[in-house]
Amino acid sequence: MFGNFARRSLGRAGPPLRRAAGVQVGAHPGAYPGAFRGKSREAGGRVRAAVSQPLLSEALQQVARAVPSHSAIPILYGIHLRLHRDGITLVASNSVMTIRTELCRSDTGASTAPIPDEGPSLVVPARYFIDIVRKLTSGPVLLELEDRKTLTVRSGDGLFRLFGLDPFLFPETPRMDRAKWQLTLSNELLKSMIRQVAFAASSSEARPLLSGVLCRYDGRHLRLVATDSVRFASRTSPVDQPFGADAYEAVIPGKSLSELGKMLDEQGETTIVADDAHIRFQTASMSLYCSLIHGAYPPIDKLVPSSSIADVTVDTKSVLQAIERVTLLSGEGSVVRLRTNPQQAIELISGTTEIGDVREEVRTESMLGQPVAVSFNGKYMIDILRAVSSASVTFRFSDKLGPIVAVPVEQGPSSLYLLTPIRTAL
Amino acid sequence: MFGNFARRSLGRAGPPLRRAAGVQVGAHPGAYPGAFRGKSREAGGRVRAAVSQPLLSEALQQVARAVPSHSAIPILYGIHLRLHRDGITLVASNSVMTIRTELCRSDTGASTAPIPDEGPSLVVPARYFIDIVRKLTSGPVLLELEDRKTLTVRSGDGLFRLFGLDPFLFPETPRMDRAKWQLTLSNELLKSMIRQVAFAASSSEARPLLSGVLCRYDGRHLRLVATDSVRFASRTSPVDQPFGADAYEAVIPGKSLSELGKMLDEQGETTIVADDAHIRFQTASMSLYCSLIHGAYPPIDKLVPSSSIADVTVDTKSVLQAIERVTLLSGEGSVVRLRTNPQQAIELISGTTEIGDVREEVRTESMLGQPVAVSFNGKYMIDILRAVSSASVTFRFSDKLGPIVAVPVEQGPSSLYLLTPIRTAL
Repeated sequence: MFGNFARRSLGRAGPPLRRAAGVQVGAHPGAYPGAFRGKSREAGGRVRAAVSQPLLSEALQQVARAVPSHSAIPILYGIHLRLHRDGITLVASNSVMTIRTELCRSDTGASTAPIPDEGPSLVVPARYFIDIVRKLTSGPVLLELEDRKTLTVRSGDGLFRLFGLDPFLFPETPRMDRAKWQLTLSNELLKSMIRQVAFAASSSEARPLLSGVLCRYDGRHLRLVATDSVRFASRTSPVDQPFGADAYEAVIPGKSLSELGKMLDEQGETTIVADDAHIRFQTASMSLYCSLIHGAYPPIDKLVPSSSIADVTVDTKSVLQAIERVTLLSGEGSVVRLRTNPQQAIELISGTTEIGDVREEVRTESMLGQPVAVSFNGKYMIDILRAVSSASVTFRFSDKLGPIVAVPVEQGPSSLYLLTPIRTAL
Repeated sequence: MFGNFARRSLGRAGPPLRRAAGVQVGAHPGAYPGAFRGKSREAGGRVRAAVSQPLLSEALQQVARAVPSHSAIPILYGIHLRLHRDGITLVASNSVMTIRTELCRSDTGASTAPIPDEGPSLVVPARYFIDIVRKLTSGPVLLELEDRKTLTVRSGDGLFRLFGLDPFLFPETPRMDRAKWQLTLSNELLKSMIRQVAFAASSSEARPLLSGVLCRYDGRHLRLVATDSVRFASRTSPVDQPFGADAYEAVIPGKSLSELGKMLDEQGETTIVADDAHIRFQTASMSLYCSLIHGAYPPIDKLVPSSSIADVTVDTKSVLQAIERVTLLSGEGSVVRLRTNPQQAIELISGTTEIGDVREEVRTESMLGQPVAVSFNGKYMIDILRAVSSASVTFRFSDKLGPIVAVPVEQGPSSLYLLTPIRTAL
């Protein structure tokens, strides 16, 4: 099934075909005659679809990730619902990221009533629609659109009417007719690459490019890079394509990519399609569209110091837990001081004059070079060490002002983290 | 072991004896010689105790429930720690509720160093102390008090110093020398009684008595009652005492009682001791002290309507879930309208003009009397139905302005809930 996605022509791929069963669209009641009381479509312009509650609830949970928690555009608090010949389409958007899922019409028991290709649509209040469907019993749910104003939801002995908005103002899903790049890779790899890199993107919009993740493909390797100018994360992985793929480079909004990472199952594949303005991640159950961030990403190749004065290898879990504890007492600035000591250990020191202070020691697996004493942001280092999936990590220290380099030992040079030290009076 | 509690003389019972192993107190390093670097107690006034990390962390989690989230008295953000001859005492207080746990000195391997009966104490910042201990590895933890200013925590290769406050200003644990009432009952019963009643106490301090739970014992039955004047909950249970117990009545702060309910294990027993000003709940692992609320609780016996115009019995889970769904669309006032219909069902209706509306039907198990139409606060009814542990519930309707009575069918008259209807224009 996934092979089909990869072999599809570029451009606007059709909706994914998971959830092929369980949806019925039509003017006739189909399997739930008792639930129908209204006029038929022919008589009054109503269109109905029946879908099982768990499928609808799962699909709504997915699109919910694109509903903004705060927005100046009220219609974005809604979910765009369309009942059409092929099933039900649900779309949510925060104007940067759009998530679309399709609940496809069942091959069996489908109504023969003439439903238009496009079908009617309505923007319904997301929070209420999601909460209602989640709390319904797990039987069939009947959706009915009437006069482009009201969504009726029937389930068991319950009947809900939600007043919606005209979809006229809702952001259109990008058409992506002129796709120029396509790549298919396993969810497992994509999820781990996002987890290892996206946290380092800036959460501020002051420099929009730094809020993004650089995605670079050279025909053989995919590399993701993020930096907020204090910390830097990079992961490279070989990704071969059966039909080849061109080189490509773009900057993807970091928050949207993090949401994608959380949504991805470990199983299955994702097909990535990009044009000049947008990128689409398509899995078996949904499509996530993202606006690209335009501009020249800062040069990254010169960031890594060419030499080091000391290399220290430690157990990742031990040093992570020690820094987590030390950072508890580091106060607002999260300043942690690291010092090598001659007994094959590093000391981690922090504290504030009000609460208290702390010293932890972590034994090293190997230690080469000169003695080192350097301060850094403990929370940033915790983020880096949590992203490392290697059992050991090597810190390379250049000099007091150069960045600390962290290399996960098992992954070799394919993963790389940098953290700029903090100058202190110590 | 629990029989001992019941047979103990009234007054200040000794600390509970759980956690008898795992604590060592003394001036000598005991089992952790490498961790000691300071002077011995004889030389400099230091006192040390060793305790296993899981025990200390669990004890801290318990007392943490009494640490206020907001307080005008800074010292209440601390935990009062005392190292003494018998072990370690931890106390936290929000000035209404005080929780005290004892980590007892191990019978084996105890130090013979002369530690004073009372021992030194310090109030250490609760949040930091708890977070540090929770994140320590599960080995032994060494606590050391020095000069009444600093708590030193050693674990593995880590050394933490927390700057504390003088306990002078910390609220004293009530002495309760003149206890006048004592009762022992199973945690399981006490926990379920609290869960079924305490939610109905007022969360406002406008009428302090209504923020409390009335506790009434007649020599054979214990009854808990709470009301915020709109809803009312009552549970009665037979509680026989091997040595008898006098009749008793007091009003206990509802929030403190709810915290106790969450803390109680299903196993074990709780001994309740009260004097004129305080009540103490003592379990195997902790003591919770509460100030009583003084004053005359409103008369409760006349609240229950003597007759009803209709009795309707429904499945508790079905009606709860239906009201949960209906309340989703009920807006800020949470107004839900209930109407009996001739087809042996109740209709539940709600809605707002902005979002939408809803009608649910719940089939009844039995329906007697006249047709009924009444409105109520849906969230309050949800709280009541969640507290009901019976599979079926009977609603008794008196008239439009009298309270709706809810009686859990299996529990008979031992549980009773009232909810005042809302007058609506409908």
